[in-house]
Amino acid sequence: PSSKLPQVGTTIFTRMSQLAAEQGAINLSQGFPDFDGPALLKERVCHYLLNGHNQYAPMTGVPALRQAIASKIKSLYSYSANADSEITVTSGATEAIFAAIAALVGPGDEVIVFDPAYDCYEPAISLNGGITHHLPLLPPHFVIDWDRLKDALHRKTRMVIVNNPHNPTGAVFSRADLDTLAELLRGSDTLLLGDEVYEHIVFDGQPHLSLLCHPELAQRSVVVSSFGKTYHTTGWKVGYVVAPALLSAEVRKVHQYLTFSTSTPFQLGLADFLEAEPDHYLQLPNFYQAKRDEFCQLLAGSRFRLTPTRGTYFQLLDYSAISDRVDVEMAEWLTREVGVAAIPISVFYSQPPADLRWLRFCFAKGSETLQKAAERLCKI
Amino acid sequence: PSSKLPQVGTTIFTRMSQLAAEQGAINLSQGFPDFDGPALLKERVCHYLLNGHNQYAPMTGVPALRQAIASKIKSLYSYSANADSEITVTSGATEAIFAAIAALVGPGDEVIVFDPAYDCYEPAISLNGGITHHLPLLPPHFVIDWDRLKDALHRKTRMVIVNNPHNPTGAVFSRADLDTLAELLRGSDTLLLGDEVYEHIVFDGQPHLSLLCHPELAQRSVVVSSFGKTYHTTGWKVGYVVAPALLSAEVRKVHQYLTFSTSTPFQLGLADFLEAEPDHYLQLPNFYQAKRDEFCQLLAGSRFRLTPTRGTYFQLLDYSAISDRVDVEMAEWLTREVGVAAIPISVFYSQPPADLRWLRFCFAKGSETLQKAAERLCKI
Ligand SMILES: CSCCC(=O)C(=O)O
Ligand SMILES: CSCCC(=O)C(=O)O
Repeated sequence: PSSKLPQVGTTIFTRMSQLAAEQGAINLSQGFPDFDGPALLKERVCHYLLNGHNQYAPMTGVPALRQAIASKIKSLYSYSANADSEITVTSGATEAIFAAIAALVGPGDEVIVFDPAYDCYEPAISLNGGITHHLPLLPPHFVIDWDRLKDALHRKTRMVIVNNPHNPTGAVFSRADLDTLAELLRGSDTLLLGDEVYEHIVFDGQPHLSLLCHPELAQRSVVVSSFGKTYHTTGWKVGYVVAPALLSAEVRKVHQYLTFSTSTPFQLGLADFLEAEPDHYLQLPNFYQAKRDEFCQLLAGSRFRLTPTRGTYFQLLDYSAISDRVDVEMAEWLTREVGVAAIPISVFYSQPPADLRWLRFCFAKGSETLQKAAERLCKI
Repeated sequence: PSSKLPQVGTTIFTRMSQLAAEQGAINLSQGFPDFDGPALLKERVCHYLLNGHNQYAPMTGVPALRQAIASKIKSLYSYSANADSEITVTSGATEAIFAAIAALVGPGDEVIVFDPAYDCYEPAISLNGGITHHLPLLPPHFVIDWDRLKDALHRKTRMVIVNNPHNPTGAVFSRADLDTLAELLRGSDTLLLGDEVYEHIVFDGQPHLSLLCHPELAQRSVVVSSFGKTYHTTGWKVGYVVAPALLSAEVRKVHQYLTFSTSTPFQLGLADFLEAEPDHYLQLPNFYQAKRDEFCQLLAGSRFRLTPTRGTYFQLLDYSAISDRVDVEMAEWLTREVGVAAIPISVFYSQPPADLRWLRFCFAKGSETLQKAAERLCKI
């Protein structure tokens, strides 16, 4: 029989990272830091690994880690989660997102996704028989078009997916965004799936406004985050889901047959670290803001145009003054000819605007790498 | 809306482990060893973790680990897999099974499952719109009823799931089983999903006959295994899928949106270990056979009846001479009153036989634990 995902190829992240490796290009495409995790965190994980904590973790996650997550979201977002019934540890945010969609979206259900959209939402929706309704974010600041959202919402809208801070654009929600969203959803059964993996990477003194900050929204929300971006450990694949007990129960039903449980030594180590250094992530905004500023300043002499990103470790660069190529070709050309790999944005659209002339660059890299990349980018 | 998995509760493994903990009972229910992983393996994982290998692994798995798996299945099963296109590392066998079913089973497709069946197959099938067709294995040796299988197979049979060595019964396939299966499937498009996580735990000098051993079957097979049972590291959640390139490509499409990739330091450490000690698992049959024999001998004076298990680290005990209780109640009574937790078998059936009087005990435990448990079991 035919493929269940005929349109799906290898993700753009894998393809660009591979091309970068083949070409010996500087890889600013796939989002991962070249910094390492905190020494204490790694030490704690090894401690558990070397001391006999290598069997299944509880299906819902190690209790101490769920408790630590509860404390964190209480102090950050004033959300009181019951760690037993409302928090579930997953094998990365990707698993959390898939589990939430598989648990809550059924055949014929509509899901609204804002384009450009991270690439894992639509395959999960379509594998579960759901119908993805794409709404474009409005450039240049990639804000939600509230009128179009209002028109799009109807009785069959099972879920709206909001990614905040937003990958690939760096857009972040304001308080007014949350209020408007609450107003539009009031009285409906529509759920929210919040992908907030960049929650600690928000700049210029803005707060991260989680769906959990807004009691009315939180009631209908499944909020996903992870430790990978926060602790420079994207390769550990430990994420989590926060949702009201009834929704969590459904997500857990799927999680227990998707992966059953998540690596025990990582969970125990993370629990210790969150207890020992609960405020560690508070340094992240400044750390990454300095990186962003460094990268943007290095490009001041280039022909790229940019608006400094407001969140995430990604910077969009507008190359319309340099080339007329479509972005997929520009990304390939840049990798091969200039030696810098980036991510084209059109792949995140169901219907990419024809005049899209942006590429996404990951600046979660050491200064030398950023300097070398910028040097190359300034030459074109 | 209503639940997509209305019949699903918390897995029996979580429930019995919890009850055991509450009651302070010896936990022989959920299957996990109380032995620890090899020192060198743990050392290698920590080496990578402490030396900066903490970012995303490739989506399909670390190349060295895929290569090591290819070498292993070549030498064990004479199956030549292309490590690039036919082997995919997953976040445990559970993810592998879910990905295979999500990729290959669509709405209306029938999947044949043999009861008693491990509990993760049916939810994955039903979430994907498939229809599970249950066929009972024939006691006392839990063999496939070939006539019923022949009658059940038809054009809509998308997949047959075979779990070998079989959990919870310990049954293992013979060469004749593979040949009969091949004969029945010849000319059809039906796929096989082989859950072979206990591949190295087979006793009494029998070989493990993987689907990969049989070239005709291997062509239509997706074979799943993991490192958890083999290296006493069930909590690491590293598994893999072997399948012909066209099937692997479909499984990977799902895997990349299910978890994207699997923990980097575990994969690198496992690759080193497999290279350093490629024959390590050859000790496993003797190791677990001694455990099985120890457990069975300790129960010689009890009123339980048993046939020594032929594979897996589970032993079924027939309690019909002791009690008339149904097995779920017997398991609960045994945990509360006798202080030994086991798994009832009826939960693995869509239609449990009324006269089922077996419980499943995990003997992957130190001698003291087995002795204490047997002492209690001999008293009733
Ligand atoms: C899971 S690989 C992609 C990493 C990432 O989140 C990104 O580059 O956007
Ligand atoms: C994933 S927890 C269950 C462990 C197991 O395989 C079993 O007990 O059968």
